[in-house]
Amino acid sequence: MTERPRHMSPDELRADGQAVLEWVARYWERVHEFPVLSPARPGDVRRALPPTPPEVGESIATILADLDAVIVPGLTHWQSPNFFAYFPANASGPAILGDLVSAGLGVQGMLWATSPACTELETHVLDWLADLLALPPAFRSDAAGGGVIQDTASSATLCALLAARERATDGAANERGVDRPLTVYASTEAHSLVDKAVGIAGLGRRQLRRVPVDEVFAMRPEALDAAIEEDQAAGRTPCCVIATVGTTSSTAIDPVRAIGEVCRRRGVWLHVDAALAGNAAVCPEFRPLHDGLELADSYCVNPHKWLLTNFDCDCFYVADRSALIRALSVLPEYLRNRATESGAVLDYRDWQVPLGRRFRALKLWFVIRWYGAEGLRRHIRHHVALAREFAAWVEAEPRLVRAAPSPLNLVCFRHRAGDGASQHLLDALNGSGAVYLTHTRLANRLVLRMAIGGTLTARTHVEGAWRRMQACLDRIG
Amino acid sequence: MTERPRHMSPDELRADGQAVLEWVARYWERVHEFPVLSPARPGDVRRALPPTPPEVGESIATILADLDAVIVPGLTHWQSPNFFAYFPANASGPAILGDLVSAGLGVQGMLWATSPACTELETHVLDWLADLLALPPAFRSDAAGGGVIQDTASSATLCALLAARERATDGAANERGVDRPLTVYASTEAHSLVDKAVGIAGLGRRQLRRVPVDEVFAMRPEALDAAIEEDQAAGRTPCCVIATVGTTSSTAIDPVRAIGEVCRRRGVWLHVDAALAGNAAVCPEFRPLHDGLELADSYCVNPHKWLLTNFDCDCFYVADRSALIRALSVLPEYLRNRATESGAVLDYRDWQVPLGRRFRALKLWFVIRWYGAEGLRRHIRHHVALAREFAAWVEAEPRLVRAAPSPLNLVCFRHRAGDGASQHLLDALNGSGAVYLTHTRLANRLVLRMAIGGTLTARTHVEGAWRRMQACLDRIG
Repeated sequence: MTERPRHMSPDELRADGQAVLEWVARYWERVHEFPVLSPARPGDVRRALPPTPPEVGESIATILADLDAVIVPGLTHWQSPNFFAYFPANASGPAILGDLVSAGLGVQGMLWATSPACTELETHVLDWLADLLALPPAFRSDAAGGGVIQDTASSATLCALLAARERATDGAANERGVDRPLTVYASTEAHSLVDKAVGIAGLGRRQLRRVPVDEVFAMRPEALDAAIEEDQAAGRTPCCVIATVGTTSSTAIDPVRAIGEVCRRRGVWLHVDAALAGNAAVCPEFRPLHDGLELADSYCVNPHKWLLTNFDCDCFYVADRSALIRALSVLPEYLRNRATESGAVLDYRDWQVPLGRRFRALKLWFVIRWYGAEGLRRHIRHHVALAREFAAWVEAEPRLVRAAPSPLNLVCFRHRAGDGASQHLLDALNGSGAVYLTHTRLANRLVLRMAIGGTLTARTHVEGAWRRMQACLDRIG
Repeated sequence: MTERPRHMSPDELRADGQAVLEWVARYWERVHEFPVLSPARPGDVRRALPPTPPEVGESIATILADLDAVIVPGLTHWQSPNFFAYFPANASGPAILGDLVSAGLGVQGMLWATSPACTELETHVLDWLADLLALPPAFRSDAAGGGVIQDTASSATLCALLAARERATDGAANERGVDRPLTVYASTEAHSLVDKAVGIAGLGRRQLRRVPVDEVFAMRPEALDAAIEEDQAAGRTPCCVIATVGTTSSTAIDPVRAIGEVCRRRGVWLHVDAALAGNAAVCPEFRPLHDGLELADSYCVNPHKWLLTNFDCDCFYVADRSALIRALSVLPEYLRNRATESGAVLDYRDWQVPLGRRFRALKLWFVIRWYGAEGLRRHIRHHVALAREFAAWVEAEPRLVRAAPSPLNLVCFRHRAGDGASQHLLDALNGSGAVYLTHTRLANRLVLRMAIGGTLTARTHVEGAWRRMQACLDRIG
């Protein structure tokens, strides 16, 4: 007879869980004290870990001690109020607790039938979010469309591209392979995820046309129109346009209405990637960002960037779910069930690349309910106000130059003396450990990016970063 | 001036967190009491939710009350000890707590530089798992290979296929598109995720050859060889073979060594999908399952199925990471950094479809450390012993027939009187709410699947299911 396995009892879960919860709460209390950018060198973390797994189990207390000793020094602290790098990935207490419920329930939402509440809450909360952002009615589940949670905008874009490929080839690409040139369009400033998705979908990265941008880094619709026309004239099939509302590099806003008109006229699928900026539409004053969105076939926004919901939570909407489902559906015997066959339910495994899916809607539900619409608006407005103030300080500083408009929470700037000085400034700032910024290139210049979006980021942190920047500027001379 | 946003303070996180933790602990205490299969009808959950999001924030206590009132009745309880459907997705206290730390830290691991510990702990823990499962040394990070956590075996298979496509076309498919027929091979019993991946990658689902199986549902290597030869003779390029160690339908074990020899001789990438069964290799007596694995180019196993780690945790290994990275790498300016350029680090965004990634290694680290190797072995042996006992009961029951071998934790059987009686039995069992099983088709017969893998599943639950089955059989007559 085999020995019975030992598992953590509910009472142990209570006691150990309280220790872990306390550890997390303490982390949030002291996260501002750590060097924002980890000072770890390659291999530091691994060298501190035992080379082989333990034969006998260890206590949660032991593991927590190693978290402090080994893991924390190797972290770059994305939740630090002094993290101004890349893009925000702001988490919050309600999101953390919603995710804890999801882990605790451990249900699978691949089909409606595998846990109906997992699917229905997701559909419902994505309709709520469509309300909060005032998205076009076509994206709601009570029309022909609907929303689904993906891990990232990369996956959402891939799914949009697969649905577009399905529509453009009437299903042939999925069945017979990509046996004719299908072309894709995005601006020169659009995220590299577009290249990756085009490669994965088998279209060939060379079939991606990078459309030129104007002086504020937004796609030129007339250049898009010309590029599509050229491909059509050459016998290629234009398949998908990806417009960006708020580029990663500089928050450039592609003109969705003009692009959408081109797409409608030319019969090309339009996907709008508003991963970061779309969240701002909880505030009516930022909804003009979405002007023309009713012309889009699909859209995504990431609450895991700027709406207090921890990663992963990309909300992907389609105006007509049938092309997406045709592109991704397979139905083996062991997944057949009466609910699916009745057609009365949504099965989200047909809306994404993976089959399995966890109960991610819970964290977004917790966030929307705990904050309420007014709390979410206040959160966005706070960061935008801080960014405007910071932008004004940059404007008034003769040694710095603004490098792009700042419609929301990102301020792009460079040193007037050139790329060398900009690089010095960036290195000096990040080397201090007190703040962390990253860079981009705009108009062939090295540019510093100040992305203001931490949950804990208050005026004092932005002021502190600015004071430090001035001290660095003084030292650079 | 804008109003300052209100966030959950660390002290509120402590208090609300304790309430949520208590809710989760209580859920685990009473999960056996709920109907395993949710009785919800389509729309039940949504009808109980307010149509629009709240304007003003609500308390965590209010949300927890709705969890009980609205969500729980709509769940199918995958953590119930009486859940014998699909495949196990067993979670555990240590995994839940590791995931809580991940949510609390909220760091991004897309690049080594974005949080070094997130990458290094993952590489390290996947080497630990390679040790625990006695995987071939080529899959370890200190060789040319290494492991990475994906969400699912679907995504792992897609990544394997993209790496295979890269190697078979010397990069041309990624750059120029799939402009010649690339063929893929899997058994007739392999999971539908293969069709989906072949479609996504632009090869065309018709390029998937379903290789015949033998009487125990395992791929016939000589049929594979003939299929590859035929494609080569016709000028097509064989690209990838997907062997399954433990099919979803019946735990059929493809002969990896013989398949691997075919693949080596013919120069075709071999991916081995051991999503469920691979976990059993923590026990030396089950390692023959992996015989010949050193001939594979890639491999995946899902601790989120049967190694006590909550979803998502698919561990994907490659023997030569360079083809994978070439297939998936893109490097825009805003992701450039010195660590990446030094070549001294791994950047996991080049090992997966999405860019962003959360700190998933923590939960696997918590599980391996809390259980230790001996705890994991005991867990696997417990379920295998229960399945063997159940299989013996079925053997001794004249009204039932075993429908496939049971090498691990799944027992497949049918009613001797035919599909109608099997369907009646399944409906009667599931309608009771006391247990939940799902079905498959084997040799053109409807077959019931008893998958024994719940964390809480003890002998008493398997006995209870058996008693209920006998009562149902009596009623069917």
